[in-house]
Amino acid sequence: MSTEQEHPKKAFGWAARDSSGVFSPFKFSRRHEIVGVVTEVGSRVQKFNVGDKVGVGCMVGSCTSCENCTNNLENYCPEWILTLMVPSTTMEPPHMEHFVVRIPETLPLDAAAPLLCAGITTYSPLRYFGLDKPGMHVGVVGLGGLGHVAVKFAKAMGVKVTVISTSPNKKEEAIEHLCADSFLVSRDEDQMQAALGTLDGIIDTVSAVHPLLPLIGLLKSHGKLVMVGAPEKPLELPVFPLLVGRKIVAGSGIGGMKETQEMIDFAAKHSITADIEVIPMDYVNIAMERLLKGDVRYRFVIDIGNTLKSTL
Amino acid sequence: MSTEQEHPKKAFGWAARDSSGVFSPFKFSRRHEIVGVVTEVGSRVQKFNVGDKVGVGCMVGSCTSCENCTNNLENYCPEWILTLMVPSTTMEPPHMEHFVVRIPETLPLDAAAPLLCAGITTYSPLRYFGLDKPGMHVGVVGLGGLGHVAVKFAKAMGVKVTVISTSPNKKEEAIEHLCADSFLVSRDEDQMQAALGTLDGIIDTVSAVHPLLPLIGLLKSHGKLVMVGAPEKPLELPVFPLLVGRKIVAGSGIGGMKETQEMIDFAAKHSITADIEVIPMDYVNIAMERLLKGDVRYRFVIDIGNTLKSTL
Repeated sequence: MSTEQEHPKKAFGWAARDSSGVFSPFKFSRRHEIVGVVTEVGSRVQKFNVGDKVGVGCMVGSCTSCENCTNNLENYCPEWILTLMVPSTTMEPPHMEHFVVRIPETLPLDAAAPLLCAGITTYSPLRYFGLDKPGMHVGVVGLGGLGHVAVKFAKAMGVKVTVISTSPNKKEEAIEHLCADSFLVSRDEDQMQAALGTLDGIIDTVSAVHPLLPLIGLLKSHGKLVMVGAPEKPLELPVFPLLVGRKIVAGSGIGGMKETQEMIDFAAKHSITADIEVIPMDYVNIAMERLLKGDVRYRFVIDIGNTLKSTL
Repeated sequence: MSTEQEHPKKAFGWAARDSSGVFSPFKFSRRHEIVGVVTEVGSRVQKFNVGDKVGVGCMVGSCTSCENCTNNLENYCPEWILTLMVPSTTMEPPHMEHFVVRIPETLPLDAAAPLLCAGITTYSPLRYFGLDKPGMHVGVVGLGGLGHVAVKFAKAMGVKVTVISTSPNKKEEAIEHLCADSFLVSRDEDQMQAALGTLDGIIDTVSAVHPLLPLIGLLKSHGKLVMVGAPEKPLELPVFPLLVGRKIVAGSGIGGMKETQEMIDFAAKHSITADIEVIPMDYVNIAMERLLKGDVRYRFVIDIGNTLKSTL
């Protein structure tokens, strides 16, 4: 890891470079979402030493001077730089080190990697919207990459968790494996009716267009429905149900660097990792097909270290 | 004012009793939204004496035992009783006294009356959503019965106020008369563009269907758009703009009795009244026609005491 203006070594990976979407080997300036172990340290690096486990999440830069940046909310800086959106020709931000997270020794690198996105995306709103108090009752909508870690964080905070899903066949997974307290099939009107007004808050991870009215109905007065998925089209918002219960519909996007470190330390303390399937580099095209079918539990992690060279 | 099970005196007023909507003289058990001076006190009344100025707002009853009721939030009680929805044949709630507000001596009864609805409806969300801090910048959408008192309360709290309206001709009224700091025509894209990201919060008083996206755009990160009007149809909610700024869309409905008293005391301290047009009883049909055309600045108050008897 270095703070030089450009990463000194060209990286090698796989990339989809035309509209076919097929991945093939590719050389580039490294800028992907990554975890690893520090092998070199530049002269201006202060936070890390050789041998440290580190990671870079969704974000690699921000303006450093706006109100959000000075309040540890770089993720809401209007000039923030998404890791995946940085063209490989741009310069490294001079404060790159700021966007590197220390991964505690006890966390396995592969299963910790998705926490840098899915973890902070769900941890941050649980904290900010005060849905982290023991004894509270929180709903998690959607049991995918975001949803399954939302359940783990909420449970570790001492919160009672209800998973809400369109798929009845996720019930066993939610209750048995993730230790959710209960499960609601969102299309089952009787179940939804019986649960009216029972939740202090909801973390809604669904990115598809879906109805908000049934979710708002599950909230107690003053309850909070927090969207962390981003449907492309506007959703229908019924206003009267918000008025009569002083309810809130909010959005939240990842988290700041200070909170991301706090999240990963909390994860280590409570042995929280993402459920992953580690794949070799040359499996990436099959993985993409499986992603489109929703056939992953819950994140693919590419083992670049052990499998990339063999594809050269 | 008494706590007897039924009001001992039949009241006389005007009512619309068929689908024509025309008002005519009518005898009934008194249950309308009212202000007045206490003339009699029942044996169980503890809060009031003869001669006190008092008022009853939108609400005359609640269950008294739910979590909201025990937290001074009777307005969010699932069994709350709206003043206008009480059929004249039902019994008085035994705790009726609880729903009577003391109106400070210095406030004129007629101009204080609308505060019991419009006042608390706008005061409560300014307080609850923390939009009451001196130096903050709050938008008020719609300059009608609710909007004009929202401006007055926000200004008295030391907040900078921008009025947002579809009608350019309300600018003078907003700035000169109500002392708003600035005015935006919501249909003027240049004006709206220039004001992007400037507001800590918005009190949206509009009951018609209207676009939320431009209003969400006016909010700073972590800003709050609070709906106090209730459009009949769902509004379009774009989710991504909420995510990238951790913004909130919320609803709020009137306020609890403790806060209503606090509001009216605050109004007296800051000489806040609603702008009203006092009309005689027999003007009520013309007033209804003018209401439908939006031709009122901003609330009609019927002078029942001086004009009702003459219509007998």
